[in-house]
Amino acid sequence: MRIAILSPISWRTPPLHYGPWESVVSLLTEELVHMGLDVTLFATGDSQTNGKLVAACPRPYSEDSSVDPKVAECLHISEIFERAAEFDLIHNNFDFLPLSYSGLVKTPVVTTIHGFSSPSIMPVYKKYNAGSHYVAISESDKSPELDYIATIHHGIDVAQFPFSGAAGDYLLFFGRIHPDKGVYEAIQVAQRVGMKLVIAGIIQDQDYFAARVEPYVDGTTVEYIGSVGPDQRAEVLGGAFALLHLISFDEPFGLSLVESMACGTPVIAFRRGSMPEIIRHGETGYIVDDIEGAINALAAIKSIDRTQCRADVEQRFTSARMARDYLCVYQEILHGGARDDQ
Amino acid sequence: MRIAILSPISWRTPPLHYGPWESVVSLLTEELVHMGLDVTLFATGDSQTNGKLVAACPRPYSEDSSVDPKVAECLHISEIFERAAEFDLIHNNFDFLPLSYSGLVKTPVVTTIHGFSSPSIMPVYKKYNAGSHYVAISESDKSPELDYIATIHHGIDVAQFPFSGAAGDYLLFFGRIHPDKGVYEAIQVAQRVGMKLVIAGIIQDQDYFAARVEPYVDGTTVEYIGSVGPDQRAEVLGGAFALLHLISFDEPFGLSLVESMACGTPVIAFRRGSMPEIIRHGETGYIVDDIEGAINALAAIKSIDRTQCRADVEQRFTSARMARDYLCVYQEILHGGARDDQ
Repeated sequence: MRIAILSPISWRTPPLHYGPWESVVSLLTEELVHMGLDVTLFATGDSQTNGKLVAACPRPYSEDSSVDPKVAECLHISEIFERAAEFDLIHNNFDFLPLSYSGLVKTPVVTTIHGFSSPSIMPVYKKYNAGSHYVAISESDKSPELDYIATIHHGIDVAQFPFSGAAGDYLLFFGRIHPDKGVYEAIQVAQRVGMKLVIAGIIQDQDYFAARVEPYVDGTTVEYIGSVGPDQRAEVLGGAFALLHLISFDEPFGLSLVESMACGTPVIAFRRGSMPEIIRHGETGYIVDDIEGAINALAAIKSIDRTQCRADVEQRFTSARMARDYLCVYQEILHGGARDDQ
Repeated sequence: MRIAILSPISWRTPPLHYGPWESVVSLLTEELVHMGLDVTLFATGDSQTNGKLVAACPRPYSEDSSVDPKVAECLHISEIFERAAEFDLIHNNFDFLPLSYSGLVKTPVVTTIHGFSSPSIMPVYKKYNAGSHYVAISESDKSPELDYIATIHHGIDVAQFPFSGAAGDYLLFFGRIHPDKGVYEAIQVAQRVGMKLVIAGIIQDQDYFAARVEPYVDGTTVEYIGSVGPDQRAEVLGGAFALLHLISFDEPFGLSLVESMACGTPVIAFRRGSMPEIIRHGETGYIVDDIEGAINALAAIKSIDRTQCRADVEQRFTSARMARDYLCVYQEILHGGARDDQ
């Protein structure tokens, strides 16, 4: 099976520090190569893969301001569609724009919808709903206006996240510094329970950081350690008492939750978006509704078995499981009746 | 001959007030319909044409902030390419993005390059240089890195610009309020010669307007009349003593110059871009190098015969001439050897 995988070009595939879409694309690509498929990855020129790499854009536009995103995007996308006849299937991980090319080629296109950045992009997904194949990344992120061939949760390479059996003494915020992500709420919880909070992530909203986060950063009760790359990630996650994920938006998936649980660290999250699909309430963390709920959950968290967190990730959230799920989708698209033979 | 014409969707086709690309597309479309061709115009839903209108985007994104430009653009462009088999030829007037779809259809695509907004878009034109057909809008705007099938100057509907035999008593600036366009230079010239300056156009650079234009606007020596729509245009242009076009960039074409000359008003322009192709020095205006040159030209301008300005436009810059030129290009693309038969 000859598969072409289209990654975003905002960051390298895999990303050096931040870039969740590119991270998932990389994990999937490498697993599919490992499974023996003929995989061609369309990504930035500095990307790394054991498959074949095709790069119309040498550098990620979020890391190189000399790259014009609109120009780079159209050259990147047109490249895969102009070579469509070389592949049995194109797997689009690049949001809505490639859909507008998909009607011009015969090769089937499957699109993972990594999230709806805005309601304004829905008309594109609706236009191509009948002729395309959509994969949701969680049940909660499904739009009732679209049809989906499958829901496939992301997976991680658990080998990159060694298990840490002993709970640490700090609470952890891990993600973009943005009001959506609840950094300020995490600070409130940490201060109420009198525990240290470590904050890790890129600053996406500078005003929010300056107004609601920075004033509390003293290096002792609240510490900001910036963006944490793959080499430090497991240590920061595994050393925490709990991960606080007090989001104020319907997050379609939460990779950092899975990474945290892989290290043994349970998660306390607000009841939004995909959180109830990722966390087993009372087993790998707690789903709560407000600050009080988060504080109560922290008091109860010693009853969570850290080995159970790890075990749940190994069972439900590995990149191997994700790749097998995608392979099933590819096979269903290419050999529609294959399911009957199984 | 079944022609599909792709217009931009920043403004209506034709535009209500500003929108030079949409204006040229409209003039060409209506002339081709008039000549008996089967023309389908892909433009915003509020556009007007005697051909067939196809609109994937109901409203222009520069007039309706609820329209997401990136979403509207890809739906607009994909629509014409998905219907490519219905046409003998696609004429792209939408900048570089449609080129990235052009390799996926069999219908030939001719692209009028209405100007290079940035050097960063050149890689797209270079990629499609071999497989596409480019039309330049002036000799001066040609890139040495690209091949062109023709240079076709824009034309106007001269009936919309009645001739005014008597020179008025004011100087005129007509265009976008932007440093490129030399509004401040026009003010300097008007003040040096002691004539009134009328300024017409949309404000594209608010800081420039506030710093270099507004302080001089007193309604008497310098008057700003805003953007002038089609109904007032001929009166404002025809009533002027001369048009000042003291640009500081290599303007690929200057529609306002042609409109001014059609009304009988000569043009004084800096020696940049396409100016020497549009103005016949000493016959329909003057090409000058600096403020002093412009002042000297004004002193000499009574030797310009206003009827000559009109006659030159009627000979070189009508929309009928433009449409005939495009038809020749279409025929050359569709029946390569046709030229030998002529």
